[in-house]
Amino acid sequence: MKETDSIHELVEGIARQARAAALQTAVLSTEQKNRALNILADLIEENAALLLNENARDLSTARSLELAKPMIERLTFTPERIKAMAAGVREVAALPDPVGEELERTVRPNGLDIRKVRVPIGVIGIIYESRPNVTVDCAVLCLKSGNACILRGGKEAIHSNLALAELIRQALQKSGLPEHAVQIIPTTDRYALNELLKLSQYVHCIIPRGGEGLIRFITENSRIPVIKHFDGICSVYVDKAADPAMAVAVTVNAKTQRVSVCNAAENLFIHRACAPELLPAIARALREKDVELRVDDRAAAILEPAGIPTVPATEDDYRTEYLDAIIAIKVVDSVEEAITDINQYGSGHSESIITADAEAARLFLAGVDASTVYHNASTRFTDGNEFGLGAEIGISTDRLHARGPMGLRELCTYKYQVHGTGQIK
Amino acid sequence: MKETDSIHELVEGIARQARAAALQTAVLSTEQKNRALNILADLIEENAALLLNENARDLSTARSLELAKPMIERLTFTPERIKAMAAGVREVAALPDPVGEELERTVRPNGLDIRKVRVPIGVIGIIYESRPNVTVDCAVLCLKSGNACILRGGKEAIHSNLALAELIRQALQKSGLPEHAVQIIPTTDRYALNELLKLSQYVHCIIPRGGEGLIRFITENSRIPVIKHFDGICSVYVDKAADPAMAVAVTVNAKTQRVSVCNAAENLFIHRACAPELLPAIARALREKDVELRVDDRAAAILEPAGIPTVPATEDDYRTEYLDAIIAIKVVDSVEEAITDINQYGSGHSESIITADAEAARLFLAGVDASTVYHNASTRFTDGNEFGLGAEIGISTDRLHARGPMGLRELCTYKYQVHGTGQIK
Repeated sequence: MKETDSIHELVEGIARQARAAALQTAVLSTEQKNRALNILADLIEENAALLLNENARDLSTARSLELAKPMIERLTFTPERIKAMAAGVREVAALPDPVGEELERTVRPNGLDIRKVRVPIGVIGIIYESRPNVTVDCAVLCLKSGNACILRGGKEAIHSNLALAELIRQALQKSGLPEHAVQIIPTTDRYALNELLKLSQYVHCIIPRGGEGLIRFITENSRIPVIKHFDGICSVYVDKAADPAMAVAVTVNAKTQRVSVCNAAENLFIHRACAPELLPAIARALREKDVELRVDDRAAAILEPAGIPTVPATEDDYRTEYLDAIIAIKVVDSVEEAITDINQYGSGHSESIITADAEAARLFLAGVDASTVYHNASTRFTDGNEFGLGAEIGISTDRLHARGPMGLRELCTYKYQVHGTGQIK
Repeated sequence: MKETDSIHELVEGIARQARAAALQTAVLSTEQKNRALNILADLIEENAALLLNENARDLSTARSLELAKPMIERLTFTPERIKAMAAGVREVAALPDPVGEELERTVRPNGLDIRKVRVPIGVIGIIYESRPNVTVDCAVLCLKSGNACILRGGKEAIHSNLALAELIRQALQKSGLPEHAVQIIPTTDRYALNELLKLSQYVHCIIPRGGEGLIRFITENSRIPVIKHFDGICSVYVDKAADPAMAVAVTVNAKTQRVSVCNAAENLFIHRACAPELLPAIARALREKDVELRVDDRAAAILEPAGIPTVPATEDDYRTEYLDAIIAIKVVDSVEEAITDINQYGSGHSESIITADAEAARLFLAGVDASTVYHNASTRFTDGNEFGLGAEIGISTDRLHARGPMGLRELCTYKYQVHGTGQIK
């Protein structure tokens, strides 16, 4: 038997078992699911030494491959991180169960009683890189929402991931839940991923979490619907009616509070009427945080005489997710121009207008095509916890099914349950 | 310039203009949209002669190509059908506008006021075959829900489709709406479809309406999310606690009221406890409507002594969408077996249990994994109008975003609009 044949059989077997498990997890009670999660949290704490050992194997490989320091950092387990992982599992157990919630109900003139009810999606495939805690985060969110999941992590974390998967298997077994409700693909061969992406008869949704290359590969090769968690090219627009102190505070927070995250701001648009007075103040505050300012000609004409160092911006700068201490700045003539620019350059993630003008805010919130649009607040709030959803599986940059933070509800679909008394058509 | 280059330019131009138009249609008022729709309805009636002429060109080609009679029938315009098309447009104008509806609202402890608001998806590509009235149906549903759309019909209807597209263009122009809000791809070259399916930077959703071959091609080639409208392998399960008269009436209705539609029943499962008495009655009623009965051994053992003609069923019969006067019948030992069979053989469309036993109904409605599950009613009710959604763009057999009948709301996504007072993180 060729190697590709055996990988095909392996992946198809996993997917078939996941589908069978999903039909069982869909009808579990909240108590059954929570019990399994709490057992898992205990197992994670009890097996901290084992997890540290397996993680050390990954770290030793990572060091010998001379992986980048931030990557090794993300890969590393510590006793504190293991405790935090267990606490995260208990938090998900404490969240309300989304399954069975009645979304709409109509009784039709013919007497049919139609209820639209939240139900699990079915089988969810999660493809991720680097951080092994994603294994646990995703498994528990899928389980709580009644889904089965197939996890495919990166090769750099394979030992940590397999050790966590074994604890999850034990928790499922101890609580009498189907063991195949959470499965990890035990090989990081790219061919296995390719096979998984074809199995639309068993797998209902693919969620990729990782770099652009991974997401592009999946989008181009998947026959299963994909919910993308892509880049965040977020902007702050400072309107002519902005409160100056608020404009400075929000811009600095959105850009610098944490530069490496998807809801950090990459662009600043500012109205020409307030730019001469306000832009130098914002720019100085950003320079104090060592932010490089890439500016258009009009911004340069304001900032250079003020002695603030800038770099000329190219058009590409406004389309770039820096994830770094760099911001692109442009002076605009109107809120309409800001909206057009953001719709052209942005990635539809999170955008904010700072203004005391209710009509400008209304135009911006209606006209900007993004998952989250803010009036007088930092873009950094786009997050499941901040939105009150509890833990999130990620932030969708897609429009279909889920947009923005994806919590337990977004891991569900719905079905219509219709009660009749013998109605025929 | 090569021909493929010019098709690429054509399709990319259409998609780019659609995206620009979508940003405008997203913020139109209900009145602006309804005015355009009512103008279109008038134009369709006023131009009936033109539409009949262009349709005659398609029909003449269809006859010379000796297309199948049902296909020619679907392609044909009559004065009555043109009137019905205009009436359909006015009905959509009268439906409530889904855009701007507040779905959820939370005020967070930090004062952020978070509203989840229904907004259009953006640009929707609709790929369809045969019936030219789909051009108008889809255009008006997309427009009413604030979306721009790109329509790609079949070559057999190209003249009818182009004539309708021209009327839609006139209606948009007369009402001051963006002309590119509805565009038709003026070539039926497969390469143009291929190009469209790659343009994920402009097009946000693809809805295919057509045969299995078309849908498979699109699923395998699209980089844009697809909402499939696939086959319906629907079943009726007659439980041991079924009311006999209701079991006969619903089964006959679900199978025979219209055999060629996706919500018609293809399978009958019946509990062994009631089969000896009830199955002959159901079978006789189906035979009166000339339905061929494909049966398992246990059903044959009941029906043959009763002198009712049957054909042995193969396992494939239970997986087949006949769209014809044929039904596959199987005797089962329990409601659990019926659930397992339906989850294995069905396509997740519409399934019905006939029973007076509330617990059996509860198990069936929870355990069957389908868009619509009925208790004591015919599967034939799965339909936008029957569900009170108004006109539908189709019945989704997918799970993500939309499941079951897709009306105006399902042509929308949502965004979060967040009002603050300067909150930073």
